[in-house]
Amino acid sequence: MSRIAPLSGFPEWLPAERVVEQQVLDTVRRVFELHGFASIETRAVEPLEQMLRKGEIDKEVYVLRRLHAESDEADAGLGLHFDLTVPFARYVLQNAGHLEFPFRRYQIQKVWRGERPQEGRFREFTQADIDVIGRDTLAFHHEVEVALVMAEVFRALPCPPAVILVNNRKLAEGFFLGAGATDAAAALRAIDKLDKIGPEKVAALLESDAGLTAEGAQKCLALAGIRSADVSFVAQVRALGVEHELLTEGLDELAAVIAAASARMPGAVVADLKIARGLDYYTGTVYETQLVGYESFGSVCSGGRYDSLASDGRTTYPGVGISLGVSRLLSVLIGRGLVTASRSVPTAVLVAVSDDDARGTSEDVAAALRARGISTEVAPSAAKFGKQIRHADRRGIPFVWFVSDDGTHSVKDIRSGDQVDADPTSWTPPAEDLVPVVALAQNEESTS
Amino acid sequence: MSRIAPLSGFPEWLPAERVVEQQVLDTVRRVFELHGFASIETRAVEPLEQMLRKGEIDKEVYVLRRLHAESDEADAGLGLHFDLTVPFARYVLQNAGHLEFPFRRYQIQKVWRGERPQEGRFREFTQADIDVIGRDTLAFHHEVEVALVMAEVFRALPCPPAVILVNNRKLAEGFFLGAGATDAAAALRAIDKLDKIGPEKVAALLESDAGLTAEGAQKCLALAGIRSADVSFVAQVRALGVEHELLTEGLDELAAVIAAASARMPGAVVADLKIARGLDYYTGTVYETQLVGYESFGSVCSGGRYDSLASDGRTTYPGVGISLGVSRLLSVLIGRGLVTASRSVPTAVLVAVSDDDARGTSEDVAAALRARGISTEVAPSAAKFGKQIRHADRRGIPFVWFVSDDGTHSVKDIRSGDQVDADPTSWTPPAEDLVPVVALAQNEESTS
Repeated sequence: MSRIAPLSGFPEWLPAERVVEQQVLDTVRRVFELHGFASIETRAVEPLEQMLRKGEIDKEVYVLRRLHAESDEADAGLGLHFDLTVPFARYVLQNAGHLEFPFRRYQIQKVWRGERPQEGRFREFTQADIDVIGRDTLAFHHEVEVALVMAEVFRALPCPPAVILVNNRKLAEGFFLGAGATDAAAALRAIDKLDKIGPEKVAALLESDAGLTAEGAQKCLALAGIRSADVSFVAQVRALGVEHELLTEGLDELAAVIAAASARMPGAVVADLKIARGLDYYTGTVYETQLVGYESFGSVCSGGRYDSLASDGRTTYPGVGISLGVSRLLSVLIGRGLVTASRSVPTAVLVAVSDDDARGTSEDVAAALRARGISTEVAPSAAKFGKQIRHADRRGIPFVWFVSDDGTHSVKDIRSGDQVDADPTSWTPPAEDLVPVVALAQNEESTS
Repeated sequence: MSRIAPLSGFPEWLPAERVVEQQVLDTVRRVFELHGFASIETRAVEPLEQMLRKGEIDKEVYVLRRLHAESDEADAGLGLHFDLTVPFARYVLQNAGHLEFPFRRYQIQKVWRGERPQEGRFREFTQADIDVIGRDTLAFHHEVEVALVMAEVFRALPCPPAVILVNNRKLAEGFFLGAGATDAAAALRAIDKLDKIGPEKVAALLESDAGLTAEGAQKCLALAGIRSADVSFVAQVRALGVEHELLTEGLDELAAVIAAASARMPGAVVADLKIARGLDYYTGTVYETQLVGYESFGSVCSGGRYDSLASDGRTTYPGVGISLGVSRLLSVLIGRGLVTASRSVPTAVLVAVSDDDARGTSEDVAAALRARGISTEVAPSAAKFGKQIRHADRRGIPFVWFVSDDGTHSVKDIRSGDQVDADPTSWTPPAEDLVPVVALAQNEESTS
């Protein structure tokens, strides 16, 4: 079992890094639940035909096979889910009779894609999704809501400032059609490549694939350049002189999102009219999120509105959702050293053991501390006290507890060396030492 | 996408059931962390050769293949992990230079086995493991510790009483050898079948496979019948008149576990000398756990001591660990209706909307409540108040908040109908309504 190397694309954290991840996940969950989203989890596998419906064969799915499988195996045709949206849509259809609509759920799970790993892009990664799904109808205000919930998540996280960029599919498609496009979807795909191939090549694609004139293509590029934190984008779009019913509808919706969001959380949500979200089947508001200063990592939080998230033929379920890429976010926070944990263990107190026969006395102290919510370990051996203190120090445990031969108790802060008499039924560590603290590193804090 | 059926062996919970699962997982994590166990997670996949080392080909592993894979693919030969012990051993070897020993970790993750599904046995299930792993040596007292941590978990859970059954491999092997067995491992495998095939067939196996005489086989069966909550088992074993050095060592160890456990948590840990743990490579204490009244579900929490949990050839890492089968436990608690959640949503308050233009006022109330940790939703539409109250009722939300035209606020407990004036910056629901409460159903509580 020698020569063990990490597997590319399958990140794992050391304990102190995992403390950061736990803190991020706890914060995400707390904010989601404060907003009344209920937790669900779906199984890791879905039937392949389910995952590949709508012809999305661009996803690199991992297919399962039992090692000792017969060829006619019932669970042949299963793959690991590549997102949480497809499984959620299936869950809603399967359990619709047991759910109340609009159904608000969050889902924090790992997903798998057999893609080429690169910075911020993994084969196994964790996503944290919220969706609101209606039966037949879903009110527009939920398109404002999910963006604000995620903005609140980012404010609660130890994290560089995040900006949620919002666009609207009706706005974009209406504009393309109004500008003369014969294929609005092709225009959207072309604009989606703007950051990769630049405006000249996009203009060529708009003409060749979307049926636009050179003038129409330039208008579309001008549209993609519009970005504003307030509703001033509306006038900028109007100034381009393109008219279309769908455009008007989209402008109204996007203006409503930006007006509500800027009133409630100024600067957190910005209209950015080049956001396209590629091949995904959104029909209204779409979202992407940039970490300020780390834009090159790509979007850490994306989503949008579907008019039909799921349908069983009789009933259609419209939805709006947004998905936080937890692993990508952590690859910035941990990978760039932006965030640190104060220690790698939950333990606040190590109870020293004076000799092996007295272990029970130390266990009593530990039980008394734990009963009041203080994470406590008993020293693994009755080594010299200096060695026991070094054991605590190496693990980052801030306090060591001693019971002397005459039965008096004292606790030592091993960072300052201060040692005071203490009662295991009443002593409490300072709040900042009770659990590991996760915070932005100092240099990051001063610049943000 | 019609005709959606569940996949056998891949359990999923409805939101109210997921509340139970979350409560169980939160409790498990809290107790583990109180005892100073640090969280880690490992990737879902391991190289097949890693998982199948030691020739454990009895496990039904799911192998992965990328849908668009080339035949010479780098990630060919990966499978989903079937437990958390093999990945943990690999993690320790991979990261030994970054860990402090004895290393105490917990790991709560899903695992997969392509086995035939049956009650309490799944293809995808969640395990919650603690292990203490040393470098070169590991003190015996950790074999007491991990059992007591799990006993504390069971006491903290809404759950029927659990009994952790403990045996010792040295005791069993020493006894078999002392009774004349030529193959102690074969004797262990025979005893492991006692519940399945009965004493007569086990006796025959002990003679045919383990080389025991008829008298020796009877002594082994007598050993397997010994069970005690105190150290009285020692005298019962001695009375069988078998002598062996390893037996003496094992008796001393098991007596130490039972003495310490019965002093600290009377009745939680019991010596049961038929516990064998089959093919697993334990070398000292072994554990299984029964839920009283639900023994037929099998063990919900098992583990033991390894003298070599991992080794890189130069360094050996002994360990002791115990694994809670969360999914199996939930299949009892939820499947048998023993445990219920007070509601299926985190939401404590629904803020009514008087008309769509006043949604912002309701959002302000919600924000004020959330700022004080109260999970709050705003009604999805400005329907008649009766309909908004029914929406809360169907979702189990206990309180509905109203803002009247003159700006006065009131909150209604929709169960009692009581409505009182309230201030969103200071009103708080009763503690039992703040978050969903998970508890043993009444009929179960009265019998336990």
